[in-house]
Amino acid sequence: MTEPAQTACSVALSLSKVGDAWSMLILRDIAGGRTRFDQLRVHLGIAPNILTRRLRALTEAGVLEKHLYCERPPREEYRLTEAGRDFLPVLYVLAEWGRRHNDGTTVTRLVDAKTGKLVEPLVVDGATGIPVAELQLRLTTSPAADA
Amino acid sequence: MTEPAQTACSVALSLSKVGDAWSMLILRDIAGGRTRFDQLRVHLGIAPNILTRRLRALTEAGVLEKHLYCERPPREEYRLTEAGRDFLPVLYVLAEWGRRHNDGTTVTRLVDAKTGKLVEPLVVDGATGIPVAELQLRLTTSPAADA
Repeated sequence: MTEPAQTACSVALSLSKVGDAWSMLILRDIAGGRTRFDQLRVHLGIAPNILTRRLRALTEAGVLEKHLYCERPPREEYRLTEAGRDFLPVLYVLAEWGRRHNDGTTVTRLVDAKTGKLVEPLVVDGATGIPVAELQLRLTTSPAADA
Repeated sequence: MTEPAQTACSVALSLSKVGDAWSMLILRDIAGGRTRFDQLRVHLGIAPNILTRRLRALTEAGVLEKHLYCERPPREEYRLTEAGRDFLPVLYVLAEWGRRHNDGTTVTRLVDAKTGKLVEPLVVDGATGIPVAELQLRLTTSPAADA
């Protein structure tokens, strides 16, 4: 995929780091506390060689980091980096989209762990609070937009 | 990938519909006005057979629909369905994440086409306006959360 080099499109740039379903499911699981290789393998039903490759790619992309949680015997787990934690809102809006556009299946919902209330992720413009769905947006390569 | 059937996780459900980088780049391009097969093929540098497969899958998933824009000779283009348009905010937050976590490359920015102002997509809880990054969220399978 030559896209990122051609245009430095920020969509393509993101997808070059976290660009497939397995990667996003791995991030979801790690955010949910399944931080060890075997926990991920079993929960995702993923082939070990694919899981190894995805974990390495996510680590190289700066989204995950390895952490030694036991020294003897050496045992590692994966943790989200700051960039990885910052990716979680992307997963939340993705989940909300899936919930809205499903065929009637009962799906998981997002809940505020403190209050127990349902949360409905919505994408707004941070500056104005206006939902981006109400805006007509375009991608620009010019850094000199009228900010 | 057996995930969606096992858990009806809304992340996995979304990814079963729009679960790879090509699919998201196709949606980005169609939203940007490249709606025809050859426009997509050239701009994405994608193999025709892969493009055909992805367009079919996105159409079957209800994200795209075919539209005849010329009757003689018959010429088709792809348009976003309502579910497809509703997916664009997901792309916007994905793009914003890529912009924040890049290695210094100049990347595309989102601009309000009407005002020319830069837009910084932010994910908030629609009910409270609180950025979801400030909340501690979990996915729940229970529909009976304290809404």
